[in-house]
Amino acid sequence: MLKNDLFLKALRGETVTRPPVWMMRQAGRYLPDFMALKNKYDFFTRCQTPELATEITVMPIDQIGPDAAILFSDILVVLQAMQIEVEMKEGMGPWIPSPIRTQKDLDKVIIPDIHEHLGYVLDAVKMTQKELNSKVPLIGFAGSPWTLLCYAVQGQGSKNFDIAKGFCFSQPTLAHELLQKITTTTIAYLKEKVNAGVHAVQLFDSWGGLLSPEDYQEFSWPYLQQIVSALKELIPVIVFGKGCWFALNEMSKSGASALGVDWTCSARNARYLSGGKITLQGNFDPARLLSPIPEIKKGVHEMITAFGKDRYIVNLGHGILPNIPFDHARAFVDAVKEYTI
Amino acid sequence: MLKNDLFLKALRGETVTRPPVWMMRQAGRYLPDFMALKNKYDFFTRCQTPELATEITVMPIDQIGPDAAILFSDILVVLQAMQIEVEMKEGMGPWIPSPIRTQKDLDKVIIPDIHEHLGYVLDAVKMTQKELNSKVPLIGFAGSPWTLLCYAVQGQGSKNFDIAKGFCFSQPTLAHELLQKITTTTIAYLKEKVNAGVHAVQLFDSWGGLLSPEDYQEFSWPYLQQIVSALKELIPVIVFGKGCWFALNEMSKSGASALGVDWTCSARNARYLSGGKITLQGNFDPARLLSPIPEIKKGVHEMITAFGKDRYIVNLGHGILPNIPFDHARAFVDAVKEYTI
Repeated sequence: MLKNDLFLKALRGETVTRPPVWMMRQAGRYLPDFMALKNKYDFFTRCQTPELATEITVMPIDQIGPDAAILFSDILVVLQAMQIEVEMKEGMGPWIPSPIRTQKDLDKVIIPDIHEHLGYVLDAVKMTQKELNSKVPLIGFAGSPWTLLCYAVQGQGSKNFDIAKGFCFSQPTLAHELLQKITTTTIAYLKEKVNAGVHAVQLFDSWGGLLSPEDYQEFSWPYLQQIVSALKELIPVIVFGKGCWFALNEMSKSGASALGVDWTCSARNARYLSGGKITLQGNFDPARLLSPIPEIKKGVHEMITAFGKDRYIVNLGHGILPNIPFDHARAFVDAVKEYTI
Repeated sequence: MLKNDLFLKALRGETVTRPPVWMMRQAGRYLPDFMALKNKYDFFTRCQTPELATEITVMPIDQIGPDAAILFSDILVVLQAMQIEVEMKEGMGPWIPSPIRTQKDLDKVIIPDIHEHLGYVLDAVKMTQKELNSKVPLIGFAGSPWTLLCYAVQGQGSKNFDIAKGFCFSQPTLAHELLQKITTTTIAYLKEKVNAGVHAVQLFDSWGGLLSPEDYQEFSWPYLQQIVSALKELIPVIVFGKGCWFALNEMSKSGASALGVDWTCSARNARYLSGGKITLQGNFDPARLLSPIPEIKKGVHEMITAFGKDRYIVNLGHGILPNIPFDHARAFVDAVKEYTI
């Protein structure tokens, strides 16, 4: 039995005394202890070593007290498991030395055995559960197939992922083949995470907002829907599409337990667009954590009032920025705990 | 008298036989002749030499035939005139060696005399008008004060302009002082462009979509409104805010003649959010020009049908990408001319 099940209650739409809170990338670079580990181990070593992933996942729980933990990992480990090489370059981000651009490239991409290629994530889930000792629930996650395609094809981060989009628009058959391979892998991966013990999963469609609503329906949404459909009977699923306000209505009918929204979508618009019934999660502008602490707390309280305390999970509208002072991150979490109607 | 006044008719909301078309950044890197000039003269030399700016502005008119010309220039020339040094670095984009972060930095920023510091733009307008010989109208433009602040404070391009946002959120008084200086300069600049002979002006709020609706109302919109109010009696004003779907309603009441929308906002949403009466401009995904030509033409025709032929200006949803084949750009313009109800 979990000692704190506020997060799961909100996912089930139950009435709560206050909304739960966690922060995307809360196990991240704003934590001094994380930076100490970062100096000792490179990015994928931290992902692939269950002891390190566990230590990092638990850090924010002990130090700032959110109501859920999210496993320290990266959406790109799925591409690695599919035999697409991914490096993390300092100051540049993800780097794929051999991006997928042709049928020949695609033929080399495998649908991996999860235990064989991502066993370290499952070990990290089990180790983290032991370490958390039922204090708070643990969230597992995956990138959306579209977002993973963006990296696999572009070969690196990009403002507009023009090469990835050009690939989809000029070779749609190949694009759909890659998207389906990623989808099949992701479903198997998340099912194993469920078996290993996570309490909920979140799907990150970080680059869904680069597509027109029509292209989103062709290249992103059907694959997310496949994943939600395969998981929803097993575990609550949260879908977060950055910039995907235009798809909230479709998403609300998908069987997902909650939808993440970014800060460009007001609480009122988000409730309206999502039909008013589904649990929503978000949407504090991560850069707003650079405001003075009293303003952060005021902003959080106004946000809760705008979303309503029920069917709501307090979060940022995207990952926490590395340059956020530790005290400001803690003030964000504290503000939620101090909220009274 | 203009030989082709379709664009101005659409701005006035008059009935037309087909909508006018132009492309943001149409005087750009997809043109082989532009690339030849780019190899000979650096970026700001091209902006600052009226003969070159004129040649580049007229290039797409002769070669692909849009219904309006837009002066070759850059939004950052306004910062340069305010004594903020701006360089354009190959492969990196804008670079501001001494970004504005403190009161001391801000005190050095001047409100320039337009003739003295931006006379070369006014000369380019006059020279271009002569060269165009009333073939099509000429659009002048400026960046929104918020978007210019982003560069002035961040010091370079950025995915999230975290430093610029942190500046606004932690030092709002300074931010407003800078925004007002930019606004005052921009109004004077655009009035002189009107005097020099442009037929319409467009305001580019390229980074407005990085702000929450509330912060947009604090740091971007009031300054855009000042500019629209100062210009609207003199000339038609188009406001284009990338990612600013949430502000379309406010924008529609501003006195602007038309609003630009990006491709994440469907025609139906854009008409609904903007109140259904104002002329809209957009919104083909620039990456969709990488599709095969028959699909481009089909997409353009569907887009016109969705927006309706009246109170509509066909455009991309953002600037044309450098890797677009010339024939594809021409097909976009041709498709509009081939449109029949």
